[in-house]
Amino acid sequence: MFEAKLGSAALLKKIIDSIRDLVSDAPFDCSENALCLQAMDSSHVALVSLKLEVGLFETYRCDRTINLGISLANMAKALKCANNDDTCLIKYDDSETDNIVFCFVDTKRDKTQEVTVKLMDIDSEHLGIPDQDYACVVKMPSSEFQKVCRDLAMFSDSLNVTCTKANISFSGKGDTGGNVINYAPTASADDEDKKESVSIDLREPVNITFSIKYMNQFTKASGLCDTVKLSMSNDVPIVVEYDIEENGYLRFYLAPKIEDEEN
Amino acid sequence: MFEAKLGSAALLKKIIDSIRDLVSDAPFDCSENALCLQAMDSSHVALVSLKLEVGLFETYRCDRTINLGISLANMAKALKCANNDDTCLIKYDDSETDNIVFCFVDTKRDKTQEVTVKLMDIDSEHLGIPDQDYACVVKMPSSEFQKVCRDLAMFSDSLNVTCTKANISFSGKGDTGGNVINYAPTASADDEDKKESVSIDLREPVNITFSIKYMNQFTKASGLCDTVKLSMSNDVPIVVEYDIEENGYLRFYLAPKIEDEEN
Amino acid sequence: MFEAKLGSAALLKKIIDSIRDLVSDAPFDCSENALCLQAMDSSHVALVSLKLEVGLFETYRCDRTINLGISLANMAKALKCANNDDTCLIKYDDSETDNIVFCFVDTKRDKTQEVTVKLMDIDSEHLGIPDQDYACVVKMPSSEFQKVCRDLAMFSDSLNVTCTKANISFSGKGDTGGNVINYAPTASADDEDKKESVSIDLREPVNITFSIKYMNQFTKASGLCDTVKLSMSNDVPIVVEYDIEENGYLRFYLAPKIEDEEN
Repeated sequence: MFEAKLGSAALLKKIIDSIRDLVSDAPFDCSENALCLQAMDSSHVALVSLKLEVGLFETYRCDRTINLGISLANMAKALKCANNDDTCLIKYDDSETDNIVFCFVDTKRDKTQEVTVKLMDIDSEHLGIPDQDYACVVKMPSSEFQKVCRDLAMFSDSLNVTCTKANISFSGKGDTGGNVINYAPTASADDEDKKESVSIDLREPVNITFSIKYMNQFTKASGLCDTVKLSMSNDVPIVVEYDIEENGYLRFYLAPKIEDEEN
Repeated sequence: MFEAKLGSAALLKKIIDSIRDLVSDAPFDCSENALCLQAMDSSHVALVSLKLEVGLFETYRCDRTINLGISLANMAKALKCANNDDTCLIKYDDSETDNIVFCFVDTKRDKTQEVTVKLMDIDSEHLGIPDQDYACVVKMPSSEFQKVCRDLAMFSDSLNVTCTKANISFSGKGDTGGNVINYAPTASADDEDKKESVSIDLREPVNITFSIKYMNQFTKASGLCDTVKLSMSNDVPIVVEYDIEENGYLRFYLAPKIEDEEN
Repeated sequence: MFEAKLGSAALLKKIIDSIRDLVSDAPFDCSENALCLQAMDSSHVALVSLKLEVGLFETYRCDRTINLGISLANMAKALKCANNDDTCLIKYDDSETDNIVFCFVDTKRDKTQEVTVKLMDIDSEHLGIPDQDYACVVKMPSSEFQKVCRDLAMFSDSLNVTCTKANISFSGKGDTGGNVINYAPTASADDEDKKESVSIDLREPVNITFSIKYMNQFTKASGLCDTVKLSMSNDVPIVVEYDIEENGYLRFYLAPKIEDEEN
């Protein structure tokens, strides 16, 4: 038996919408402390890691560890039925193991809606991702990073990141044009305009290049959090992380491109 | 000679836009008391019945009963030329029997616009629809009914309605999931929040199933009226009705599906 | 060396967006007094003439006359990278003749963005367009003229303009319908509602017909200026002109259709 209630269906909808183009079917791991999901994208290049901790939920009950395979397209359809203010109860009953049920309650009207989604068998290959010290951690507005990726994709297939203490530079180049975007870290990061600030926490400079296509996919999660955190070391996968209301996260991992002609 | 003037072209635009995907060419019956239209959809499954009474018009003159066959696609194009605040004069002149003319007057500017639409021959098969007592009449917000139909179509081809004195339930089921939506009738239907209330007037319980595709077409008329009226009896066509400013209506009739595997 | 700075990148973006469907690659003539562009559309029917005078720019430096061939699709991509409030510096360096550079500065944040666009060889066929006295000059709201063209295109391939001192009439006719739109010139053109007024300056009446397809392309520039100026004489190309902040213009020239069946 698994039963968890979110105060707002809209949050879960945003999360699923931001990963469903990357991952079509995903295994949800329900355990005592959290609802987790880990999956490679369909071309096995990027890794998505989602954690929703108990603290995010209004009520949470999980009798034993369960693995639920769900088509994210169908889950997105189910969540589309919710109004933004509806509460969302997620139910899985051991006696009816074929389905997961989403119950939406409209608090303004005497109305209930139960959407059932068929479960599927998915091989759950839980990769242990070692916690790591990164050479450089950048925090910046997620909308700003989204625009960087969109702009660079105009002319380039790749996104190069070069970071020093004084500057972070994103660049890309193609046959018909190119783009260089520089940010200086914000001097005083007052609490008030924190969500507008760019901060660089640097142990050593980095210079790495990624596929812009995947980065553009990741930034669909920009609506989840005002700030995105980029953790980077040379020759190591980048982590693009969105915090979820301080009780969870959505992380994307992407290995750098081997540089050939990139500058 | 037929000449009728609407205070707002927008109303007629909304009406035509809500039926033109269902009915491509339609016969308008102009008579002394009303402008009417009755037509089967192109696959001869659903029936559309529109009545615009004299009271809706600022001026109305109809010398004799006339039947005008119009392509609704072309009529929609003509009405698209009107600004929302324009008045709309509809003119048919016996001396120029090929055309109907829509005149739009922009009251803010010294501008007139006359759009001419060619008429066509259409067999007018006016079906007598007997007035009928229904086992159950439900009134609910039209936007709510529209969402019900849209949500059910996510997983299902059919919409099942089950109605008792205490509850109306809409449900649908497909291979990958399903949906059940329940409403309890609103206790006190105060005038103020009438347009938000759900009311059930029931002689005997009903349990019928319809094609969701057609229902979704009907709900395009939701913008015409805050409330939709569903009149149902078992094994009899449902009537989905939108009132038009208390001086007319737009009604859709749809025969139930013969149940086989539906629950 | 050419260097010119616009206070707002948005203006240039609007200009390029309004002509890039008509002209794919264009030669920009940079001279001491202005940045100009003259090009035929790809089917060699319409002529586009753009002039941006020095007064439009915050800074402007042009050492010698230069001709820069640019793909407008790529230039539009570059300008799409600018935020609406960004300033836009256009740079061409004689030592790096392959590229033009657009620098956007976000004044709210310590951020710079340099977008490079590759130049191309374009035959610059600068046509001398003689200044001409027209039989009739009409000024009207550009949004109104845009709607006229859109409405007429519903049923017709052509737009006929008939203009007298007392009235300007736009009309078009097709197999399934037609459209006639009349404007009387606004009596008093007070400064306040000038942008809503229609004025006719007439030496002799005109009656000419144009391809509606091209007119619809021209009206994409409607966002540039509240008022459009139509300069017409019988049997002579029309000039559709949008003023650019009193320091330049965007003009479209289109030869009339030879009338056959048009009325």
